[in-house]
Amino acid sequence: MEEYEKVFKEVLAYIKPKPQEKEKLNKIANKVLEIARKEARKIGGKAMLAGSITRDTWLADKMEFDVFILLPPNLPEKKLEEFGLMIGKEVMERVKGKYKIEYAQHPYVSGEVEGIRVDIVPCYEVKSPEKIKSAVDRTPFHVKYVEKNLSSFMSDEVRLLKQFLKANGIYGADAKTQGFSGYLCELLIIYYKRFIELLKNCVNWKPGEIIDLEGFYKVSEYPKLRKKFKEEPLIVIDPVDKERNVAAALSSENFYIFKKIAKEFLLNPNGKLFFPREIKPIEESELILNQIKRRTEIILLKFKAPKVVPDILWPQLRRTAERMEKILRENEFVVLRKDVYTDEKENAIILFEMEVSKLPFVQKRVGPKIFDLDDSERFLKKYKGEALVGPFIENNKWCFEVKRKFLTAREKLFDSLNKDVKILKAKGIPNYVAEEISKNFEIICENEKIMEIVKEDKNFGIFLRKYFEKESLI
Amino acid sequence: MEEYEKVFKEVLAYIKPKPQEKEKLNKIANKVLEIARKEARKIGGKAMLAGSITRDTWLADKMEFDVFILLPPNLPEKKLEEFGLMIGKEVMERVKGKYKIEYAQHPYVSGEVEGIRVDIVPCYEVKSPEKIKSAVDRTPFHVKYVEKNLSSFMSDEVRLLKQFLKANGIYGADAKTQGFSGYLCELLIIYYKRFIELLKNCVNWKPGEIIDLEGFYKVSEYPKLRKKFKEEPLIVIDPVDKERNVAAALSSENFYIFKKIAKEFLLNPNGKLFFPREIKPIEESELILNQIKRRTEIILLKFKAPKVVPDILWPQLRRTAERMEKILRENEFVVLRKDVYTDEKENAIILFEMEVSKLPFVQKRVGPKIFDLDDSERFLKKYKGEALVGPFIENNKWCFEVKRKFLTAREKLFDSLNKDVKILKAKGIPNYVAEEISKNFEIICENEKIMEIVKEDKNFGIFLRKYFEKESLI
Repeated sequence: MEEYEKVFKEVLAYIKPKPQEKEKLNKIANKVLEIARKEARKIGGKAMLAGSITRDTWLADKMEFDVFILLPPNLPEKKLEEFGLMIGKEVMERVKGKYKIEYAQHPYVSGEVEGIRVDIVPCYEVKSPEKIKSAVDRTPFHVKYVEKNLSSFMSDEVRLLKQFLKANGIYGADAKTQGFSGYLCELLIIYYKRFIELLKNCVNWKPGEIIDLEGFYKVSEYPKLRKKFKEEPLIVIDPVDKERNVAAALSSENFYIFKKIAKEFLLNPNGKLFFPREIKPIEESELILNQIKRRTEIILLKFKAPKVVPDILWPQLRRTAERMEKILRENEFVVLRKDVYTDEKENAIILFEMEVSKLPFVQKRVGPKIFDLDDSERFLKKYKGEALVGPFIENNKWCFEVKRKFLTAREKLFDSLNKDVKILKAKGIPNYVAEEISKNFEIICENEKIMEIVKEDKNFGIFLRKYFEKESLI
Repeated sequence: MEEYEKVFKEVLAYIKPKPQEKEKLNKIANKVLEIARKEARKIGGKAMLAGSITRDTWLADKMEFDVFILLPPNLPEKKLEEFGLMIGKEVMERVKGKYKIEYAQHPYVSGEVEGIRVDIVPCYEVKSPEKIKSAVDRTPFHVKYVEKNLSSFMSDEVRLLKQFLKANGIYGADAKTQGFSGYLCELLIIYYKRFIELLKNCVNWKPGEIIDLEGFYKVSEYPKLRKKFKEEPLIVIDPVDKERNVAAALSSENFYIFKKIAKEFLLNPNGKLFFPREIKPIEESELILNQIKRRTEIILLKFKAPKVVPDILWPQLRRTAERMEKILRENEFVVLRKDVYTDEKENAIILFEMEVSKLPFVQKRVGPKIFDLDDSERFLKKYKGEALVGPFIENNKWCFEVKRKFLTAREKLFDSLNKDVKILKAKGIPNYVAEEISKNFEIICENEKIMEIVKEDKNFGIFLRKYFEKESLI
């Protein structure tokens, strides 16, 4: 037996559901499905199980399944949502579960029965994937495809892959993670058959790697495909929809993390890579040392996390960081690196590490070419009153030197954000973040104050350590 | 009599040559011309006077004239040069003048007779200006055009204009001055007839102003003309060559200085604007105060002025300043403003006033997109050894953080310039400057050292004052 096989066996002993767990999940799933089927039939619909339960690829600690309610495609959307919620509630009440309404493409019932999470999701039963009205309508086709193509020996291979990704923070296609979805894991195993084969092959993946399970495309069409899925490092053509990249959510960073950990495992097969490393929060002395060693300034922008789902929250925080970096840059303050953090409940924090955070008293304003007469007139009028020097001309452009309004990046940040919500939105700050910032925000530079946040929230301390000890991707 | 007329009268009393000066100049000019004619005739050529003497527009302190030797256009260039020098030397020896050889389009004899400067310049006598072989061949046509079109009352108008420009540092089309040539002055007076009319009209000039004395172009062709003479603020179509802008050398800055002083004179007609203001060299306390008030750093790059004519020296210094600013910017050091100085003999100095002159210990290296496989490989190889952080990915581009090699702009400047002449040239430093810098250069930041230069060279002190007290162009 090869060394890695021993490791896989050990790992599977931890992550593979026990027979009694399987039994419990299947029992409840069948019960829920049966009720759902009856209810669906009443209005001309069907019900089916979805999620990892249908292919036996779930991890021990993840007891959950989905039930899809398939309804006729001629049903108006309003009706579909209404029926979906009606059936969901009815089923959950009949099995004595707790539930609430969640919002994705349609509102749906998300419940819990005996510790097992159950989502009941309505969708249209379309004839073929080209006819779908929204992404959920595609799921039944995925279920069927995987059922047909994932051999039973592959279930544990998928489990190994999922656990490997999970332990390294890259499992999940959600906006925070930007990693590998469950369906993507299953397709990769269908394609490479064994987890170890996937590992051996992925180390040779290049950005723009194409995996086309059904052979929809000729190799000569690959360059065109790469253009279509531009900036996406891994292109896995969906076997049920050749226009779709199953790996679209995967970030370039995570693409390389996967290659890196695969290589690490192949060089030294052992179980460590399947279980998360423990990371300690940063300590004050380390925070100070990092800043001395780097001679940079850390600026935190802190505000209340808007009450929205993580898939909206994270992209809005990232967008905010981008916008603020750009605004600082327009004022000659230069960000070296930045990152975003949120506990998804109380706090949202954007970290800027500054390369240039203090500037002279004078600021040069470069205007239009002197030949652009209208623009020149406007520019000259705008700055004439406050000119310390000028107007003068450089490279045929009008210039002034004026008194700099904001001498530090901190002051500029404060001024840019200390505005009402309308102005914040006009500056390109996303809606929910703009609303929170317009109510309140803090700008924090002092190490003691940074450490106060760490004391209250260990995860922020871990985030800071990861920020400074940013790992190499190669 | 209007107020300005009184002023003009007073000014003319100073600047108009006295009768005995005129007599002396004309006497010598005729003598030189006569000899030149005889010599030229021997080889089938002609001779003619050129320069302000021919239109009686010279200023009292500028006793000089040119003699052009017109030779047949079928003569080989080598022969033309040879004959030109031969005649020049012969003439100068016969009038007992001193002379040397200067280099313009062709080498020519530049001499001095009784305190009067005489240039003897060979050119081809072509049938029409379209047939010229080099710019000097055009001069005889200019002489004839002005002789024909400049009425005698205009001579003093031209003198007023020249003096007005000279006093304000914008007379001369040479590379240092980038101002108005004598011929341009004459054309402007031919067009506007009176100096006062020129002043009244120029305040309404806009960049891209077109003056077409001979009406070569329809107004509908003006936009096309402005494209042809792009980035040239004043377009005066040469009456003897409609493809040429007589004002091509005029910088945008000087275009606006002219408009500004014209306006000043019209608002308050008095003689002051016709005589240079006295400017005192900067004092140490002022130098320090300026830097405190601006919170900037002054860096001087000082080297021996290359032994080349000013028309080559000045553009090379300006180009050097541009290149070095760009190199600094590529290393995140930001120049706020810059300027160049030379006494045209000993020293050349480039001044950089820094907006950002000190940077963190870490430096971010941003590389190619991860999808550019070859470039990525090169980039990753190049920086992997010295990485403090990374490689990581930002906006799908490879990044490293490395130890910054140059923490200050001064260090970076020193390193970039402390190279042999080949490397300096490859960096875009112009030839003559590269040669001097490769031999020796100094980088000076300390105020005491800056003041040492001022003590040795008053003009540098004036340059510094002008730098800080840079005048508004409007």
